[in-house]
Parts: sequence; structure tokens; C-alpha cells
Amino acid sequence: MKGIWTYHALLPEVENRARMSLGEGHTPLVKSRFIGPSLGLNNLYFKLENLNPTGSYKDRFAAMALSRFVQQGIKVCLATSSGNTGAALAAYCAAAQLPCIMAVVDGAPEGKLQQMRLYGAATLMVKDFGKRPEVTEQVMTMLGRLAEEQQTSVQISAYCFCPEAMAGVQTIAYEIAAAFDGGTQVFVPAGGGGLTLAVARGFERWQRQYGSAGHHVVHCVQPMGNDTIVSALAGGEMHPTAVPQSTTAISGLQVPNVLDGFEVIAACRRSGGTGFGVQDEQVWECQDWLAKKEGIFCEPAGAVALAGVRRALAAGALDPDRPIVCLITGHGFKDVQRASVMASTSANAYLANEKELKNYIIQLINK
Amino acid sequence: MKGIWTYHALLPEVENRARMSLGEGHTPLVKSRFIGPSLGLNNLYFKLENLNPTGSYKDRFAAMALSRFVQQGIKVCLATSSGNTGAALAAYCAAAQLPCIMAVVDGAPEGKLQQMRLYGAATLMVKDFGKRPEVTEQVMTMLGRLAEEQQTSVQISAYCFCPEAMAGVQTIAYEIAAAFDGGTQVFVPAGGGGLTLAVARGFERWQRQYGSAGHHVVHCVQPMGNDTIVSALAGGEMHPTAVPQSTTAISGLQVPNVLDGFEVIAACRRSGGTGFGVQDEQVWECQDWLAKKEGIFCEPAGAVALAGVRRALAAGALDPDRPIVCLITGHGFKDVQRASVMASTSANAYLANEKELKNYIIQLINK
Repeated sequence: MKGIWTYHALLPEVENRARMSLGEGHTPLVKSRFIGPSLGLNNLYFKLENLNPTGSYKDRFAAMALSRFVQQGIKVCLATSSGNTGAALAAYCAAAQLPCIMAVVDGAPEGKLQQMRLYGAATLMVKDFGKRPEVTEQVMTMLGRLAEEQQTSVQISAYCFCPEAMAGVQTIAYEIAAAFDGGTQVFVPAGGGGLTLAVARGFERWQRQYGSAGHHVVHCVQPMGNDTIVSALAGGEMHPTAVPQSTTAISGLQVPNVLDGFEVIAACRRSGGTGFGVQDEQVWECQDWLAKKEGIFCEPAGAVALAGVRRALAAGALDPDRPIVCLITGHGFKDVQRASVMASTSANAYLANEKELKNYIIQLINK
Repeated sequence: MKGIWTYHALLPEVENRARMSLGEGHTPLVKSRFIGPSLGLNNLYFKLENLNPTGSYKDRFAAMALSRFVQQGIKVCLATSSGNTGAALAAYCAAAQLPCIMAVVDGAPEGKLQQMRLYGAATLMVKDFGKRPEVTEQVMTMLGRLAEEQQTSVQISAYCFCPEAMAGVQTIAYEIAAAFDGGTQVFVPAGGGGLTLAVARGFERWQRQYGSAGHHVVHCVQPMGNDTIVSALAGGEMHPTAVPQSTTAISGLQVPNVLDGFEVIAACRRSGGTGFGVQDEQVWECQDWLAKKEGIFCEPAGAVALAGVRRALAAGALDPDRPIVCLITGHGFKDVQRASVMASTSANAYLANEKELKNYIIQLINK
């Protein structure tokens, strides 16, 4: 039994018999071979959270959430997610033999829902849920009451809803701290901010436990079309701001509400970090770079941190000699449309025979 | 730098500067929570090779292949693959900044080719390649000559073509041996047999190096529609048999030629292992079980080992107390059609409002 439980001393108490793992965590820290050096950054690292069991860091959340369910004898999992949290909960529910029932927003992408259902989860879409605020509120209120009746709780990956399960995500910071004694500069993508807060709190917890010398700076990165946190953080303000509507196309980061934003601003600032806003086009460019220049295939949200590094570099806000870590949060297979776009720039041909093949290959080599 | 290089002492020599890793290997060994106990097997483990960087164990091959290319100053990678080897080579070529040119069989599934192209590889399909033997031979001969001219070699994941790169795959056995001092029974799916041979040779190499007490039995599992090895192995024969045509639908295991089959038979037999044939339907059932009962999403080939365990159990050929390890070779996202079939048995509804949602959830819970 490894997974997040390697760090059980720093996690909420769960009895040994209830601890679950599908092999989450212990994700690779890969040193950049091309992008870093080409930017003048000789210590740029990618933390490959996309290689978690269901393809995102949310498995750390689900491992903790379901272990607590097992410990408490809870019989059903209710959740709202239209993406990676749902897939993670679905997989860990399957392993725990618990029914997983997911209320999903109207218009959620079918590919993501399919990933939940193949693990056996029910995906229930509700008209106007996530679109009209009054419907969203009605659904959330009903789910909360129903969860109470069923002696369970609604699982949402944010500290303001599920702080204990979010503690599972803090293991990302423990792994980075264990790998870099001397401290780092970590770039974290944010929607509601839960991941950023988990990383910042994780470093603080590590420091309290082990008092290590290294200092870790946590920077928060958001697409400008969902700037609830980063401008406030960079501008020295205390308060995040809800946006009327997310205009970013980066799936997973379209969270117009302020969830953990307040605590994110405080925690990043305590670490010496700040906020960076990026454009969707820069994110897609970084996603394509990661695949074609580093061999790392992530979903668009997974490339946001690298886009943030470029912004920080342009702003002169980087220490080029202290290690920089980009969190690659989710796997590219989560977004098949982008995969298709990324593939379209590479050579693809149908050739009549081996002579044509030879000529084509020679052309490619000499290009 | 970890990856396969943790075991550099047991690998072909590559200088430190040339060693490449994208975080391959060190894959989780997850203990079965449901399927094992329900079969009366209290020590059934899954080795999650699907969590490698490009989603299959072939990353261990590609890490070794490209590291050797870097060491030797080779400038281009030529290969034939219509599946996981191609994706792995494409990613490691991207990381090594080498052009990757893939000759693919006529009719290769577009999804798999797309995974190669998104990393920047060229996918060149040739009419009748892989269908008509004379075309296949012409293409292979031409590629061999061209590779020589270009001072490179054609990469194919089999010992009979690329023994040094296959040594990278032996790290699977090193990881299992390191985790289970007392020995195991390992079930390995086979097409041409390269993986099975890598596992068996890996255990032998480990034994020579460390002389550990544990003995590892290696069983080979094939779909009956591609029985080049397992009947011969189980029947006490020395020689594998080519089949005129693969009739299995399990992608990745449709290899009618005898590649490493002769050595596979000898090596499995030396280990005390044998061969098991399985039906495609049993494989799909196991794939669905793994997702819905264990939370593990693999491609069909990744479920073949578990189907083999069931066969071995029925044949009374298992020691229920010695650990059993199933190699889960590739990720489920590799085969989107099967994902869709697997998802189709779970509840999926569009509901008008929160009341309908509540009723639907209560029905699901009480079912």
C-alpha cells in the first residue's frame, strides 16, 4: 500500500484497513530537455500528474475521499463534476464497491461523462444545471439534503466543501518537497483554486513537520477568461472576485465562482508567490510544445502552468537558478478534440508502394 | 533521473549524459480488492503498465531505444508500428528532438496513428502493407536498406529485431522481483511474445545478479485467435507455429508470425510456467470487470492476463497462496470504441429539474 499513504503522518487519520490506493501519486518529476534550456531556464521540471490512475491529480482527492467513506461505513457517493473529479471518484467508488452518482451540468462534454460511466458511475444531467444560477442552487440544495438523509456528503474538490479529501491533494507538495531540499518555484493552474491552496498548504505542513531549509514559492496561474484570483493576487488585494461568466475555453478551469480564492491569495502571498494571467492561445501553444518538444501529452489545463512560467519570465519574476516546477495536471486523452488538432500538423500520407514510401521518407529526412 | 535507469546495472551500458526518461516504469502494483477474493485468490496483484507516460509498457522499450540513439549520435528514427510502440517512440523522439517516421500497416486504426502524430511523428500508410505478404516484405526490405544508408536501424519491439531496446522492458521483472522477495506467478499477454520473453529473461537476470531466494513462474497468455505460442507451450512442444491469419479482435496481439516465440517457450518452461489460451469474449469481460470492480481502466490486451488467471484457476494450475501478478499492459484510452461499449451499461439520463433528479437518485440507491 503506497499511493498517498506514503505520507499518512501528514494526512487526516484513516485506519489502515480503510486506506485505499489505486497507485495515485509518486508521479514523475521530469526535467525539461528543450523548452527550459530554450528559455534560459536550466532547472525547469514537469510534475506529471497526468500519469495518475484516471489521468489527473484528482485521484489524490478521490483516494482520500473514498478511504474516509470506507472507514465511516458510508454506502453511496454523491457528487457534482463534469470532468476529472468525476472520473476519479468513479474509479475509486468502483474499487470500494460503492455506487457513484454524479449530477452533471447541462452540456457537459460526453467524452468526460463516458469516462465516469465506464467505471460504473451514473451520470445524471439536469436541464440548466450550471447555466441558470437558480437551477444550480436548487440542485445543490437538494443534493445536500439528500446526502444528509443518506448519511453521506456531496463530494466536490474544493476546501470550502471537502477539506479532508483535499488534504489528499497536499501530497503533491510533499513529493516536491522530498525531491527538492533547497526549495522551488511552483506554478499551479487554478479554476476555483483548490489545487493551488493544496500545494501551498502542503508546503506549510511539511515545513511545520520537518522544519526543512528549503523554501517553496507558490505561483497561481489562471486563464484571463476566468480571472477570479490572479489579478487580485498580483495587485496586492485580499479579495478574489467572481466573474459573471467564464470566457476561457480551457476545460476544468471555467469556475466563475469564488471557491477557495480568498485562502489561495493569502497562502500564495505568504509563500512569496504571485498570480499570472494567460491567454487561451498561449495555453494551447504550450500544450503543443509539451507534446512535440518534450514528449509530454497533457490536456489544455495541464499546460497552463508552463504558460505561466513564460509570463513570469517576461515579467522578470523568476529566479533562473532555483528549480521551477510546472504541475501538469491532466492527461491529453481527456480532450480528444485538441488531440486531433495537435496531430493535424504532422505528416500523414497514404502511399501506393514501397518506392513512394522511400521517396516520401527521404523528403522528410532532408527537410 | 529515475525511470528504467534505476536498474542501470542490469541494462545495456548507456552513458549518463545519454540516458533519457519521461518517467516510465515504477508502475503501481495494486492488490485486487474484489476480483481476487471473489475467485478465492487472496494475493492477486495488478501491475499497472497502463500508467506509463504514453499509456503502455512500450515506453520502457522507447526509453532504451532513444537513449542508445542519443549515445550513438543517430539522427532519425524509422519504425513500423500501428499501435503502442509507435506512440512510445513518437514521444521519446520528441523528447530527444529526433524526427520519427512510422511506416504503418494499411488499415491501422486512426486513433492510434493520431497519438503518434500529436507528438510530431509522421505516419505513412502503405497500400497492402501488413495485408499482402509480398508487399510487407518489400517494405521491410526497403526500410532496412534505407535505415542502413541513414546510419540508423528500424525499431520493432521484439528481441529478434531490437534486443538491446527490449532489455529496457526487462525492468518490469526487476520491479516485481524487488517487490516480492518470495517469488510470484506472473501472467503475461503475448502477441509476438517479446513482452513475455522480457519478463522471463528479466527474472533470470535478477537471479544471476542477486541470487535471491524467490522463484518467479512466468505464464504466457494468448487469445485463441492468435495461438502461435500457448498451445505449443502447454503441449510440451519446442516450436511455436505461425498462423495463416490472426482471427482475434484484441488489438496489439494480432501477430500471426513467430517472432520471439521459440525463446518464449523455452524461457516460460524454464521458469515452471505454461501457456493459456483465452477467448476474446472472456478478455472483454475481464476488461469490464477491471474497470467496474477494481477501478482499473485498460485496453483489451491489458485484460488478457486476468483472463489467463481465470483459465489457470479452472485448470487447477495456480498456487492460491503465492502472489499472482497480472500485467495490465496498456491504457483504456487507447481504444475509444471499447470505452464507449463499457460506458453503455451505466445509468445515463437527462432530467428536467431537481425533483426528477432526486427521484432518479433514490431509485438508483434502492436498486
